[in-house]
This record gives sequence, structure tokens and C-alpha cells, in this order.
Amino acid sequence: MKLNIAVLSGDGIGPEVTKEAIKTLKAIAQEFDHTFNFKSASVGAIAIDETGEPLPDATLDLCKHSDAVLFGAIGDPKYDNNPNAKVRPEQGLLKLRKELGLYANIRPVKAYDMLLSQSPLKEENIKGTDISIYRELTGGIYFGEKQLSEDGNIASDLCEYSREEIERITHLAFKAAQTRQKKVTLVDKANVLETSRLWRNVVKQVAEDYPDVVLDFLFVDNAAMQLILNPKQFDVILTENMFGDIISDEASVIGGSIGLLASASVGDKHAMFEPIHGSYPQATGKGIANPIASILSAAMLLDHFELHEEAEMVREAVEKSLQLEITTPDLNSKNNTITTSKVGDFIEDFI
Amino acid sequence: MKLNIAVLSGDGIGPEVTKEAIKTLKAIAQEFDHTFNFKSASVGAIAIDETGEPLPDATLDLCKHSDAVLFGAIGDPKYDNNPNAKVRPEQGLLKLRKELGLYANIRPVKAYDMLLSQSPLKEENIKGTDISIYRELTGGIYFGEKQLSEDGNIASDLCEYSREEIERITHLAFKAAQTRQKKVTLVDKANVLETSRLWRNVVKQVAEDYPDVVLDFLFVDNAAMQLILNPKQFDVILTENMFGDIISDEASVIGGSIGLLASASVGDKHAMFEPIHGSYPQATGKGIANPIASILSAAMLLDHFELHEEAEMVREAVEKSLQLEITTPDLNSKNNTITTSKVGDFIEDFI
Ligand SMILES: CC(C)[C@H](C(=O)O)[C@@H](O)C(=O)O
Ligand SMILES: CC(C)[C@H](C(=O)O)[C@@H](O)C(=O)O
Repeated sequence: MKLNIAVLSGDGIGPEVTKEAIKTLKAIAQEFDHTFNFKSASVGAIAIDETGEPLPDATLDLCKHSDAVLFGAIGDPKYDNNPNAKVRPEQGLLKLRKELGLYANIRPVKAYDMLLSQSPLKEENIKGTDISIYRELTGGIYFGEKQLSEDGNIASDLCEYSREEIERITHLAFKAAQTRQKKVTLVDKANVLETSRLWRNVVKQVAEDYPDVVLDFLFVDNAAMQLILNPKQFDVILTENMFGDIISDEASVIGGSIGLLASASVGDKHAMFEPIHGSYPQATGKGIANPIASILSAAMLLDHFELHEEAEMVREAVEKSLQLEITTPDLNSKNNTITTSKVGDFIEDFI
Repeated sequence: MKLNIAVLSGDGIGPEVTKEAIKTLKAIAQEFDHTFNFKSASVGAIAIDETGEPLPDATLDLCKHSDAVLFGAIGDPKYDNNPNAKVRPEQGLLKLRKELGLYANIRPVKAYDMLLSQSPLKEENIKGTDISIYRELTGGIYFGEKQLSEDGNIASDLCEYSREEIERITHLAFKAAQTRQKKVTLVDKANVLETSRLWRNVVKQVAEDYPDVVLDFLFVDNAAMQLILNPKQFDVILTENMFGDIISDEASVIGGSIGLLASASVGDKHAMFEPIHGSYPQATGKGIANPIASILSAAMLLDHFELHEEAEMVREAVEKSLQLEITTPDLNSKNNTITTSKVGDFIEDFI
């Protein structure tokens, strides 16, 4: 197979971890005789520094003409603490999601047996957890109208959803559930929000097309508890953009390390693959950033193109590295000299 | 002191647990020579059944003419799964908060040493946790305009905040921090939401009045992780209504039991005290509901009227009951015959 992959490695540790994902994909290409072409472009704070724009036109253009996007991370503290900044790195990411129509963000959350002891949660509570979160990514309060009164004293954000926006991701979530434990949990706040009531109605209707899948509902506040009390009860979680942002980051603690969590953002035409950790500026350039999340994002990319055998090999390599403790210091109590690129080298060699 | 207390025990286990809180307050009144008068009124699903309204006028009237409101719980599954119900129990609670101007919901989260083993989190992570969450309660997306298009295909909720709404709760949070560890963490999503940027600006300005208090900021997705990874880093958490709903329920798992968590909802004229657990319909009438959250809410009521010695005595009684395992089955591995009212009796006797 021939794939053109746009590489947007972004800020902070983004470039370091993305490099290892590329290394992995190159090894897979060689082993399985594929042709993967990589082209890089800038995004985020670094793009603002270079061009004044968090998502330069050339970058968007490259993504639109590629088969997939491999994304690193964005964000820089110099913008976070300035609520009045007119341009922010995050705008680049949001615009990219919107322009590429990436309406579904998929985040697998798994408790790896060999890492159970790293989790802040008790082992017996999390062992066996295997959740796939489907977060709507191009609608809701993220993209609704924002207003600030002229005197700066009143601000507002509009949360809006249409039936179509809900339907398309719901179909993806139910299809995924059919290949898993056949259960979808809709997380909403239908006792308060009109948009949540629309979600409940639409999801109930779509569910009729999937009689083999069980649908249940959980208010978001309760879901935030249940994820910690008993994460094993979940199979596929389906939710809107803002709740998905919170719930999926919360769920990331289950596995013991956010350095392991990958995500895919997919739409009808494009797809982007990204570790869920942020730019982690404090770690930049130190060789301590964990590349596994980025490497597992590359595995999700392979799966997306039906290269399941290849994806499986990447995941095996990752599990092997965890078993042998060929891991960066965040996961390694015995040896803190294994760098980002050494982990990548091991995975490359394994493949 | 003479206090007129409105009792709105509501649905499910609400009446059972509230009864024990009243028992406790009566014991305190006798011991310290106060006069507490209790008058009951209906709210929630039970009020809908009786009057068609989740918050009958007579109930609101009673609350407005009382010094404080003791609240039980509301909610009934028959409404939850019907997104099209025109009247819902929750509307009663929301209207009550709004009409009484209860703009600050205060939720203490503490890890009791004797209950560390009950927590789904590892002991070393939570030991010593002592957080006070200040959630804005009468603004934001809960109360903004809601719309549903005529064809039922587009829904929206408006999240709106004004400078005044932010200022008043911020002052309360900073004043509380001054009596505690002198740290306030604002939880928001200022990288995406206009309302969050207003929160950041206003809170920074208010913070200048409290030079002895440290202010820091956390995006809500990160906060949802940090609460589990390292809850001890927090002192006072300040946040808007929807984020507060999620974060405070999430935080409730730290202590090992939601059956222990009390809350106060305060405004400039009125105050209401309420356990944070819901109506828990499955447990209704079985004598297994844990009354401690409701009893600790009564302690918060006492504190509110500067009856600190009295409040302290209630808390001591509660700690004693936990130590001696005079607790309902949710906390009791040895003996599951101790009922809701037996726990109340023990606390009454202790006082
Ligand atoms: C950077 C930020 C805008 C983004 C979001 O909130 O969607 C991030 O938290 C994420 O989850 O990908
Ligand atoms: C019942 C519901 C409307 C309410 C809320 O969301 O505020 C509850 O979850 C709470 O936190 O008190």
C-alpha cells in the first residue's frame, strides 16, 4: 500500500515522540513492503512564531492532500496564562479538526497488566479495563458562537448540536461496539441540557439499527465517578465534545500513564492520529518523553487503513518493550537512562 | 439561638437520611439550649405527584421565610429515561437554587484515615487529602437560554457569565482559602471558552485583594486527571457550574464513600444544606442508606450560623461512629445489620 502521511509534530515534546512513530512506520513499511511518504509542516506555537498563524494555509493544504495526518502536540505556557492573547496554538488544532471534518475522536483506554502497579487506582478495580471512548470533536460548545460584551463584563459560549452531527458519530460508536463487548454508554446531562436531550433522542433512534448492542445512559457527573469506582463496566462510551474532553482525560489515569494513550480523529474523508498527552514543555529536549502514545497512534493509523496485521505487530512490540522495561523514566523504576529514542529503536528492531 | 429550618426531604432515600439529620440537630439544640423549629414541605418527584409542580409555591415560600433549608435528595428513574418529559424533579432543585440566590455550592472532600481502605484509590495517593470545592451554582449553561428547533433537529444551550457572578463566589473562595492552606485553583477551559477567559480575568483581579493567597489555574481536562493522580495538591478549587458538577462528583470517590459527603449552597440571603448523594431509589425504605452525609450537612448548617462548637461536636460524633464501625452496610464489612436510624441514634446519644 502507498500512503502519503502529513507530519505535524508541533510544540514541546511533539517532535521527539513523533520521530519515534515515524521510525516505527518506516520499519513496518520495509517489513510489509508498503510505501509510506512523510511530509512535514508546522502547527501550534511554533507556527505562530514562524508565520503568525497557528495553522498556516500550507499546513492545512498538505493535510487535505494527504491520506492521513500524524500529529504530535501543541501548546506553550506563554499563551496559557494570557487569556487576552488574540492568537493561540489551540486554535490551530481546532481549525484543523473542523476543516478536515474529523468529527469522531476515538480513545482506547486499557489497563496493561504489567503496569497495574503504576496506576493511582487499586489493581483489583482496574484489571481488565478495556474502554473505547467516542468523543464528538467538531461540534458543541467548542465551535458555537462566542461573545464578549463591549465593556468586557459579560461573556458567552453557545453549545449547539444538530441531529446529523449526533447521528454520524453514533453510527461509528455502535459499529465499534459490535466488534467489542456490544455495549454503548451515552454520557450526557439530559436532566439539564437541551442538547443532551437531543443526543438521547437521536442515539435511541440510531440504536434501533443495532439490535445486538445494548445502550445505556449515564449523567456526566455520575460517569465521572463510575469511571474511577468501576471502570470495567464500560465498553464503548459515546459523548459530546466538552464532556468527552474531560471524561477521556480522566480515564487516562486508569492505565497508570498518559504516556501510553493514543487517539484517532476520523471523519468521512480524513483521519488524524495523535497521542493524547500534551506538549509537556518541561520535558522538551531531555530525551525523557514517552514515545509509546505516539507509536500506538501510528498503530491506529495502520488499523484505519485495514493494515491490521501491521498494527498488531506494532502493539506486540510495544507490549514487549513494557514487559522488558525498555521504557522511559516515567514507567521505569529501575533504570532511568532509557531515552525516548532508545524505546523507538527497540520497537524498530523488534519489527 | 433560634432558627427556623425548612425541611425538604424530597425523593428516594431523602426522607430517611434527613430524619437522622433532624435528630442530630435536635440533640444539639437540647445540649446547647438553642431553639430549632422544623417545618417540612415537598419537592421533587413526590411534589410532582402531589401538585404537578417539582417546586410548589408553598415550598418556595416556606424556604424564603426560613433561616436555612435542610434538603434531602430528588430524582426518580421514571423521569430520567424520558427526555421528553415536560416536568422533571431536577427543575425543582434548579429553581430553588435560583430563587434563593444560592450562588455558591461548597463541597468539602476529605479522606478519613479510617476509611482509606474503602477508596478505589491507593492509600498513599489520598492520605491527608482535604479539599474544599467552590462551584458556581446559579449561572452558566444550567441557566442560559435553551432552544430546540421546531423540527426537533437542532438544540442549543447558552453558557453565559457576568463579572458580578464570578466576583461574588470568588470572594467566598478566597476568604475560605485564607482560613485554610491559602491556595485557590481556578478550573476552567480558557484555551477554548470565552466564558472561561472572563473567569480567568476576573479571578486574577479579585486575587489582588488577597495577597496572602496563591492563585493557580488548571484546564478542566487536566484537573480531572490531577484530582486522581495527586489530590493532595489542592486546597480550594473554584470553578463554574457545569465543571463543578463533574469535578465535585469525581472528587467524591476519593474519600471512599459518597455516603459521607455534605454540601452547603449559600447566597447573600439564604442557605441550603444537602448531602451530595442522590435519591438512590434502589435503597429506599430498606434502612441501608448512609445518613452521615446528611448529618454532616447539618454540621455545615451549624457552622454557617457561627455555631462552630456545635458543628465540631457533630463531626466528632461522626468520626466516633466511623471509628467504632457504627456504620451502614456500605461502609461496614463486619456487620450489615446497622440501619440508617441506628447510626442516627448513636450520634444523638454521643451528643
Ligand atoms: C488543546 C485542547 C484545545 C484540546 C481539546 O480540548 O480538545 C485537548 O485538550 C484535547 O483533548 O485534544
Ligand atoms: C440533579 C442535578 C440537576 C444536580 C446538578 O447537576 O446540579 C446534581 O447533579 C447536583 O450536583 O446537585
